[in-house]
Parts: sequence; C-alpha cells; structure tokens
Amino acid sequence: MAQGDIVLGPNQYGKAECRLVRITRDTDVHQIEDLNVTTQLRGDFAACHTDGDNSRVVATDTQKNTVYAFAREHGIGSPEDFLLRLAAHFVDGFAWVSGAELSAEQYAWERIAVDGRAHDHAFSRTGRETRTAVVERDGERTSVVAGLKDCTVLKSTGSEFHGFPRDRYTTLQETTDRILATSVTATWRYTRTDLDFDALYDGVRETLLSTFATVHSLALQQTIFEMGKAVLEQYDAVAEVSLSCPNKHHFLVDLAPFDLDNPGEVFFAADRPYGLIQATVLREGA
Amino acid sequence: MAQGDIVLGPNQYGKAECRLVRITRDTDVHQIEDLNVTTQLRGDFAACHTDGDNSRVVATDTQKNTVYAFAREHGIGSPEDFLLRLAAHFVDGFAWVSGAELSAEQYAWERIAVDGRAHDHAFSRTGRETRTAVVERDGERTSVVAGLKDCTVLKSTGSEFHGFPRDRYTTLQETTDRILATSVTATWRYTRTDLDFDALYDGVRETLLSTFATVHSLALQQTIFEMGKAVLEQYDAVAEVSLSCPNKHHFLVDLAPFDLDNPGEVFFAADRPYGLIQATVLREGA
Amino acid sequence: MAQGDIVLGPNQYGKAECRLVRITRDTDVHQIEDLNVTTQLRGDFAACHTDGDNSRVVATDTQKNTVYAFAREHGIGSPEDFLLRLAAHFVDGFAWVSGAELSAEQYAWERIAVDGRAHDHAFSRTGRETRTAVVERDGERTSVVAGLKDCTVLKSTGSEFHGFPRDRYTTLQETTDRILATSVTATWRYTRTDLDFDALYDGVRETLLSTFATVHSLALQQTIFEMGKAVLEQYDAVAEVSLSCPNKHHFLVDLAPFDLDNPGEVFFAADRPYGLIQATVLREGA
Amino acid sequence: MAQGDIVLGPNQYGKAECRLVRITRDTDVHQIEDLNVTTQLRGDFAACHTDGDNSRVVATDTQKNTVYAFAREHGIGSPEDFLLRLAAHFVDGFAWVSGAELSAEQYAWERIAVDGRAHDHAFSRTGRETRTAVVERDGERTSVVAGLKDCTVLKSTGSEFHGFPRDRYTTLQETTDRILATSVTATWRYTRTDLDFDALYDGVRETLLSTFATVHSLALQQTIFEMGKAVLEQYDAVAEVSLSCPNKHHFLVDLAPFDLDNPGEVFFAADRPYGLIQATVLREGA
Repeated sequence: MAQGDIVLGPNQYGKAECRLVRITRDTDVHQIEDLNVTTQLRGDFAACHTDGDNSRVVATDTQKNTVYAFAREHGIGSPEDFLLRLAAHFVDGFAWVSGAELSAEQYAWERIAVDGRAHDHAFSRTGRETRTAVVERDGERTSVVAGLKDCTVLKSTGSEFHGFPRDRYTTLQETTDRILATSVTATWRYTRTDLDFDALYDGVRETLLSTFATVHSLALQQTIFEMGKAVLEQYDAVAEVSLSCPNKHHFLVDLAPFDLDNPGEVFFAADRPYGLIQATVLREGA
Repeated sequence: MAQGDIVLGPNQYGKAECRLVRITRDTDVHQIEDLNVTTQLRGDFAACHTDGDNSRVVATDTQKNTVYAFAREHGIGSPEDFLLRLAAHFVDGFAWVSGAELSAEQYAWERIAVDGRAHDHAFSRTGRETRTAVVERDGERTSVVAGLKDCTVLKSTGSEFHGFPRDRYTTLQETTDRILATSVTATWRYTRTDLDFDALYDGVRETLLSTFATVHSLALQQTIFEMGKAVLEQYDAVAEVSLSCPNKHHFLVDLAPFDLDNPGEVFFAADRPYGLIQATVLREGA
Repeated sequence: MAQGDIVLGPNQYGKAECRLVRITRDTDVHQIEDLNVTTQLRGDFAACHTDGDNSRVVATDTQKNTVYAFAREHGIGSPEDFLLRLAAHFVDGFAWVSGAELSAEQYAWERIAVDGRAHDHAFSRTGRETRTAVVERDGERTSVVAGLKDCTVLKSTGSEFHGFPRDRYTTLQETTDRILATSVTATWRYTRTDLDFDALYDGVRETLLSTFATVHSLALQQTIFEMGKAVLEQYDAVAEVSLSCPNKHHFLVDLAPFDLDNPGEVFFAADRPYGLIQATVLREGA
Repeated sequence: MAQGDIVLGPNQYGKAECRLVRITRDTDVHQIEDLNVTTQLRGDFAACHTDGDNSRVVATDTQKNTVYAFAREHGIGSPEDFLLRLAAHFVDGFAWVSGAELSAEQYAWERIAVDGRAHDHAFSRTGRETRTAVVERDGERTSVVAGLKDCTVLKSTGSEFHGFPRDRYTTLQETTDRILATSVTATWRYTRTDLDFDALYDGVRETLLSTFATVHSLALQQTIFEMGKAVLEQYDAVAEVSLSCPNKHHFLVDLAPFDLDNPGEVFFAADRPYGLIQATVLREGA
C-alpha cells in the first residue's frame, strides 16, 4: 500500500454491564444500591491485537471481579466515587494501563409503605429516570461526567413553534400552542473530583426539570439552552452541560370528520420519526 | 380429508396500541391521561376470512378513530370505564359483533415541582408500574379485569428457601436468608362493572405491595398466594387474582478467592434464566 | 366472606429462558443447536402456596440443571423431541407432578462461507424467524404445538381493501392496490407425537410463506385463512393452525404538495397503532 | 461567573428515524428498498437557542418531507448515495447550514420462493445484520462511513485464551479451546465519495466474516485486528475500520455433579455482563 503499513489505532476493552446490587445491613433498616457498571481500559495492548500476546491483558473477568470486590471492600457511595476508586485501581495499578473509561447506570428504589410507614427492608423500583456517571482517566487527568436518561417530561401548554423558513418541502403549520414532550438525556462535566456528587445530582436534576416547566418555549432548542444555562448559573462545579432531546410529537387528532372540535384535548402520541435536538452549553473560555 | 372440511375457528381483530393522550384544560391546572388502547372485535366475520367479503368488517382504522373520538365526546376517566363505553359501542352498535376484548395500558405522570410547588401544566412520567385494564364483552356478559405490570419489588431479607426435594439433578443449596425480588404482573377480576375503579386500583396495588413487604417468605409461591389472598380479603368486589412473578435471582458473589467475606451484602443481579411462578387465587365456589 | 373460603386456583412454576447451546463435534464439521427453553410444572403444589412447605417443589434450579444435563445425555434433535423427553422426565418422575408445559425458541445459524465453501466450525445467525415449540402434558395426554414468530413478510401489490361498512367514525379510503405487510406469528398443533418435526417445520413454513405470496388478498383476514387452510390441506399431521398477524401499515406518502406524484412507490412504514388479526383454522369436527 | 459568559457549544438537530420503504415497479418484478433515515443539521442556529428565533430553523418536519420527496425524485440506490444527495441539498441549499450528519440503517429483504421460483412481488425480511451508512458534510469536506451491526457470529473451536496476567482478583481459568461468539458492529471510512458502495459493502462484509472464521484466535482483540486488517489489505478505498465486539460468553456447563462429562458440548449462553472489545485499524499516516 502506498499509504503505509496497517496499524492499530485507538482501542479499549473491558467488562460491560456488571449488574451490582449492594445491601447495607448495619442496622435493621437496610439500604440498597443498584448499579450497572462498565469498565473499559486503555493503554499498551498492541501485542494482544497484533500477536495474540495476552501478557498485559487484564482479563475482563478480572475487571468484573474487581467491581464486585470493591463494592465489599470500599462500599459504593455515589456512583462517581465508586468509579473514581476503580479508575485509580486500574490506571495506577498496572504500569501499561494509561487510561480508563468507567461508567455506571444507577437505578432508584424507594421503600414500600406499610400502613403509611416506610418498610425496613422491602423496596420498589421507582422507574424514574436512570442516573448515569462516567469517569475518564487519561494518565493523571481525570474527568467526571454525571447525567441522567429516560427522563420523560411533557408540557401541555406554554410551547409555540413558528417563524421557521418555508421551502418547497415545507408543509408544517405554525402553532402558538402545542404539547412539548421529550425524554431528556443530559450529561454534565464537573470541574473537580472531590464533590458531593449525590447532592449535586439531586440539585441539577431539579434545575433541569423546573426549567423545562417554567420556560415559555418558542422551540425545543430554546428550552434546552435554558435548561443547560440554568444548571451552569446555579452550580459553579459544573463546567458544561450536554443535552440530547427527542421531540416526542403529540399530534392533535383531527376530529372534524366526526363533527367534533378538538381544542387542544385529544392527541396521538407518535413513535417515529421524531425530532432530535442536541446541544452543549458551556462557559465561554472553559 | 377424512376429518372433515376445513373451517374457521375462534378469531378476532382490531386496532392495537392506539397511543392516546388527553389533556383536560378546564382550568389553568391541566390534567393528563395517557393510555395505550387495543380493540379486538369478535362476531360473524367468516365471510371476510373465506371470501374476502368485507361488508361486515368494521375497519381497524374506524376502530382507532372511535377511540380518539370517544376521548373527546365522553372523556376518559378510569381506563375500565373508558373501555366499557367502547365495548358497548361496538357490541351494541353492530348487529354482527357479538363480543369484544378491549384493553389498555395506562402510564402515570406526576407534576414537576417548581420551588416546592406542583406545576400547573408540566409533568414527568413516574416510570412506576404500568396499570392495565381489560374489558371483555361476550353477548350480554361483561367482565372487567384490572391489573398492573412491571412493578419491580425486592426484599433484602425475610426470605428463605429450603426443604425442597433433591434428586440427581439438584445442586441448589438451602438458604435461610436470601434476596427475594420480582417484577409483579397481576390481574384481578371484578364482580361488577359499576365500581370506583381508580380507588380500587390504588387500594389493590397498596395491598399487593405491603403484603409482599410483610410476609416472611418461605417460597415465592407462598408470597404470591398471600398477596392474592390479602386482596380478596380486603376487597369484596374482587372475584379472583392472578399473579405471574419472575424470580429475579440475586446471587451472592463468592468473594472468598479475594480473602473477603460477603455477609449478604454484594449480589450479582442475573437476567436469564429466571424462576417463573404463576398462580390464581380465588374464592371457593366463585 | 359469603362466597366461601379463599383457595388456590390454577398454578404452575418453573425455570424460564434457559439459554442452551449445544455443539456436536463428532467430526471436524461441527453442528450447532441454539435454544431458549422454559419449563413449567403443574400438580399438587398447594402446600407450598399455603404453608411454605417446599417438600414437593422441584426447585427451578433443578429444572434448569435437568435441561442442560439432558442436552448432554440425550442430545437435542428437534425442539419438540427434546421437550417431549423433558416432559416425560418431570411428569413420570415425580408422583405429584401431573402436568407440564415445556416450551422452546430455536434460533437458526448458517455456516460462514469462506472462498465459497461452508466453514467447518464458524457460523452466523441467520436472523430469520424464530422457531417455537410447546409440549403440554396433562396426565397421560400430550400435545405438541409447533410454530414460528417474527417472520416479517410483505407484498408490494396484489392486495386490496374495500367494501367495508362506513359509519360516523369511518374515514379510511378504499383501495385496490396497497402494500400488505405483517410479522407472522403462527402455531400449529400436531395430531401425533412421533413425527419428523424438523421436516414438518420446513414444510409448514414454506407453505405459509408461499401462500402469503400467491393469494390475491382482499383482506388480511382472507390471507390468514388461506395460509392456515393450505397447511391443513397439505399436512394430515396438523390438526389446527393459529395465526396472529399485525397489519404493518405502509402509508403512501402524499407528495402532491411538492408537485410530485406517487404511483405506489414511496411509503412511510408506521409503528403504532397497527391492525391485529388473529384466527384459528381447523378441521370440522376436530 | 468568573469563568465568563454562558454560551452555546456544539449543537445539531434534525429528524430521526424516518422509516422509508420504496417500491420500484417499472416491471412486474418489483424491487424493495427499506431504510431508516436520520438527518442532523449543523450551522448557525444560535438565535434559536438563545432567543427562540426560528428564522433559520429548517423544520425537522421539512427535513422528513425532503427525505420522502427525494426518494421519489431521485430514487434511493445505495444508502450512501442517497445520503450524499440529501447532504448536498441541505448544506448547499441553505446559506447558514454549514454541515450535516445523515445516517441510515438498511434492512435486507429476499424474495419468497414459490415452487422453487423467486416471487415477483412477495418478500420476507432476511433478519441478517443491519447495514448502516453515515455521510458527514463539514463545509466542503465530505466523509462516507459504511458499516453493519447485529451480525452475530460464533466459532465452536479455534479460539484460545491464556497467558493473561493474574492479580489478587483473577480467578479465570486459562483455556485452549473455547467458543468465541460476538455480535459485530463495524464501521469503515471510505477515501472517496464516488464508489460502488453496494459492491463494496458486500465485499467488506464477506471479508469480515471469512476472516472471523479462519483466524485461529488467541484473543478477541487479535481476531478483531485481523478482521480490520484484511479489509484494509483488500480494499484500497477503505481508509480505516472500527470494530466494537461484545464477547458473548458461552460458559461450559459443569455436569460433573450429575456424573456426566462435558467435552465442549453443552453451553450456557450468558447475557450480562459481557466483555466488550473496541478497536480501530488504519493505515499508518492516514
């Protein structure tokens, strides 16, 4: 080949989706933590790819064992703290491992109420949004990105869409009152690694949702920008926010053929296709 | 064929999964109802099957239109009441339609909190269990079956499993303390059609969950029976309860190779295979 | 309660979704079998439900072990034969087990071609429809039901739909040429248990598909009936055929606003809602 | 904020998952093309985000219309060619649109055989891997990335894994004969935009699979590298290949408790966790 030899480019490997449940039973009032953990290591693994030499390949099975053992040795705490410990273990512990991407989903549980009292050791999964966390180590540099996904929200009014350009292929009517619904996927990068990640998560989540609720929307883009901006305004520890939001279309059903009006009441919730709006909001110079 | 001619057996048809969202906006405090409705009609449709004669085939598109129009004309209310109205329309309205199976899933939303106050018109989907309802009409006979699904619950103690028979293929160890987790699918048949279905749903749901929490379990079968029994004891309007519960295995991770004990703390949540326990509980003579 | 005591009704339990892969390596040309097996036992298990007495509860873990051990001891062969052996083991082997429902999905693999030659031990999953089998034992009575699912088929012409009744809620236009598409779920019950199930599966599958292709359709109902009828006409060993077919709507896109015609060329394939047609075809007197 | 004002970072938007089916009916032998198309535009959309000014927002509905209209006006052909035309339309047609990411999935259909002859207008979906294509325009620069996903392959022998480092958390046994199975996700970037994309797809796909089959594997990493390398060696038009491959673990079932050996015959196919190996292979200096 004129362009040169064939070489290995960027690569990583690890164990994906280790389903980890930890019960803390120091007292009769148990605590539950429920994670889905994925490890991915980076470093000098070229000999494995080119020659099948596994002498540097920390087995993915070993990575999985480490996840479960760490949950016992060090506890979990916030997913971010748990992943930071794992990242340190892998990157500091193996000379040829130069970096890692550790990620987790966390599922929320609440106590079952019995006669109006929260039960000691019986729980139901809330089904609310999934909390996400990604810790990336690259040599000595560490980044922590928190997030959430599958957070479905809807406004039944306070959303308009008009003033868009019209070309040959434009048929959409302008509207000054529509349903705005989306399933929020958000990630936000922290400036530091020594934060109260659980408290921050709760705060950022609340800011995202309350901003969605209160912004009078002229476009989903505008709503997204305001959501990210509100988080940055309130939380110095957040460096940037990325949002990916499907526009879950709710079409007003035409009931005129049945001699019925439909003043913003009856909607068909469509699956596909859907608008998809993605944006990052950050501090200038960040 | 010696066995006789080939004939049409049981059959039904309709429109599946009409995603219906209704906003009630009588006041500034909007209400949202969110359903997935499926219609299935039964009756004398033989000519369509055997000859392609559609003169009696109420088009599935018409059925869908009816669902949306009824949401405007009559409102929704409980899914059971909505389906009862649809059943009456189809079975009483077309001479050759002798029966129908109408079903719905309902998704729960809660108001987004802004500064501690529930917002007027912004909602987030709770993600809790899905409520289900099935109305079956067969001539003049009507049955109403309510239910829920995807209700994931877990007990971190208070569950044993031992005393089972051992044969050549048995390797399972006995245990006096395990995690018991399941995703409850429950249906319950009402004795009447003129009930407060929303209040009953809340009550039956709470009974199912609190019974799961409080029964000291010797087997998932026992827990299921007690759950169904508690519903029947508390609600005269319920004739029978059916439960289908996967045993979502949480395996205690063996940490001994790492010189760690594991006193009921760290678990691997497995996907497949899973135990599957199904039972109906009913009144004798019902 | 006036209506009597609360009692246990129909119930069954077992291990669901045992993913079983068997490699036959008698020669260098390996064979692969890939199943998802579910066992469900019925019998006298009341003491477990009412008292947590497990002395008759063949553990679901034991059932799983039996599935894997049987794959080694007896091989697999057709899924029907494999399930028949398991049914005999459970129902004949435990006095209090009076019946069982054993089911399986089977996934098809084909050999990877290397230089035009089928490889000895490398395979790719075909992704075609999933084959299904259910064996039911009730005391001495045994039924075998074969089937397939997720078999997506489409006709780009040769399908009409008109002549249906029009009521207040009817807006659908009549058509003499539409796309007909569905994902076939079919099950068929055999008259005997000593059949060449693999050959029959191939034959029934081919009959279903070729009938779908060749019937000029006036309604999906008609197509379904003809598909079932063709199977019964060709296979004496089949007692009845049940079909469940979503009408996967392909809507002709209205391109007139863009000054384009659309003579049956460009379609939007919709997800939900969909028509759903279900019917059983059987021999009179069967 | 000390760090400066809050600004909009990278962003894009468009219509996701336009399900497009095109029938070519020039002759009685129809052709079918089946795509899932997503459009994402980039450019100067800041005013929409910050002020809700939509004067530059080509509506996602307009984008969808364009997809369907283009399928009529220009046909589809290869997904890459279809996306290239769409990219040119959006980026060249709107002054403020500076780039676009157009992507598509393509589903394969085959003709139903009737009496051994391929039918003119009846098809079944093959269910084989999904073909993917991404066209990215950034100003005048265009990149074309083809790919496939959900291509499940398995080798029943010819795979070893040993020589990996052992630490405190390592329990995995070494093996010289295991099942190697994965679901290949591959993407490859072309050097040019004027290629016979359909022929290249078939060729690259065959090379990937036959290399998987023939490489004696010492690690999944090695297999992946060889797969990418083989593509680069055979196809000058390919600049780099990226592969993401879950190690779909097949665990040999321990049958010793049942007095049975298991010489590589009976396996449990696990779901989660799974190894995940990702690598890019490219030409040096590319």
